[in-house]
Amino acid sequence: MKTKPMLQIALDTLTIEDAIENVKKAEEYIDVVEVGTILITSCGKAAVKALSDAFPKKIIVADNKIADAGEVFAKMLFDNGAQFTTCICAAETPTIKKTLETAKKYNEKNDVQIELTSHFTFEQAKEWRSIGIEQVVYHRSRDSQAAGVNWGEADLSKIKKLCDMGFKVTVTGGVAVEDIKLFKDLPIYIFIAGRSIRDAKDPKAAAKAFHDEFNKYWS
Amino acid sequence: MKTKPMLQIALDTLTIEDAIENVKKAEEYIDVVEVGTILITSCGKAAVKALSDAFPKKIIVADNKIADAGEVFAKMLFDNGAQFTTCICAAETPTIKKTLETAKKYNEKNDVQIELTSHFTFEQAKEWRSIGIEQVVYHRSRDSQAAGVNWGEADLSKIKKLCDMGFKVTVTGGVAVEDIKLFKDLPIYIFIAGRSIRDAKDPKAAAKAFHDEFNKYWS
Repeated sequence: MKTKPMLQIALDTLTIEDAIENVKKAEEYIDVVEVGTILITSCGKAAVKALSDAFPKKIIVADNKIADAGEVFAKMLFDNGAQFTTCICAAETPTIKKTLETAKKYNEKNDVQIELTSHFTFEQAKEWRSIGIEQVVYHRSRDSQAAGVNWGEADLSKIKKLCDMGFKVTVTGGVAVEDIKLFKDLPIYIFIAGRSIRDAKDPKAAAKAFHDEFNKYWS
Repeated sequence: MKTKPMLQIALDTLTIEDAIENVKKAEEYIDVVEVGTILITSCGKAAVKALSDAFPKKIIVADNKIADAGEVFAKMLFDNGAQFTTCICAAETPTIKKTLETAKKYNEKNDVQIELTSHFTFEQAKEWRSIGIEQVVYHRSRDSQAAGVNWGEADLSKIKKLCDMGFKVTVTGGVAVEDIKLFKDLPIYIFIAGRSIRDAKDPKAAAKAFHDEFNKYWS
């Protein structure tokens, strides 16, 4: 019996109202609500508070991609109801450490994810594990997708290596329902879907389709 | 005759009011106003608009450390009055390219700076030059400073290498007035001061002291 992945909705809208509406349309099938970097830049920490207030039973991720000043950001985000936040892979280790310590001070269940780009190294990943980091977000960038870069063997083998190092891995970057089976042999922790749910004619059915795939391959 | 560096004030306050007040106290000696990542996370894009409206004669940098979705962020920030924005060094090249293209569409004078951490490589730097990037921000992180890391020969030699590659280099991360002379042989484009101006008893005098050093070594 394998642990079933969770489904995270990425909210990269420009307004809080649109973000809330997007979750509501598929609420039943959403496990994790991501307050996206775009939404935070648009509306500030108020977006984290609003989503946390609107969906108290969901895990709230403030995807802030922290690069410095870990404590200041962590305080701001956890004070406003986040359970997870993200550091960008280029952040210095003391920044990541400070972010994690601050997260855990609020609540032992809070956590910090490292947002990977193609520029991370496994040497860094080893260092993250050594300071207690348990989560990474494997990311195919929006702009790289637009430039025609697809999911491939190289991604899968890197993700496997991260899983083998003990990371709980979130997968994101234009994940479509038909991509899910590619990952079936890996203990993926969370899949993120954004536009594939938000832009669907029937967002609830779109979110359910992800869970149907999870049930097919992880049970 | 060397070109004198500019002085940038980093506004990492939690409110727009505090940020505006901080600039006003030293306005005469400030060339560049940085809407810091902390302030943007706190207040959103409204902070960029407010600072731009309050100080129309200053260069406004929205320090967003863009990691993805370059066009969306650039539109949001340049629409709200930024002249410069930043991409984090871990961003994929298509993201940086898209950010730069969008900046230049608004105004040829707009620009994009790459925010460096210790994890950037000179291979990446070469790639940035090849797509038209002219500015980098050499950064000693706040958390690394707190961990006791000081300005040293390694920093200076990396900065020199970046200058030699044709980058206009901004230097930041706990730069004190007494540090300025360390950089006297380099064509530094901008020095960023944050708390050393904001927390000074006389912020105007503190900002003037930076310019006095610039005049001493770059004229």
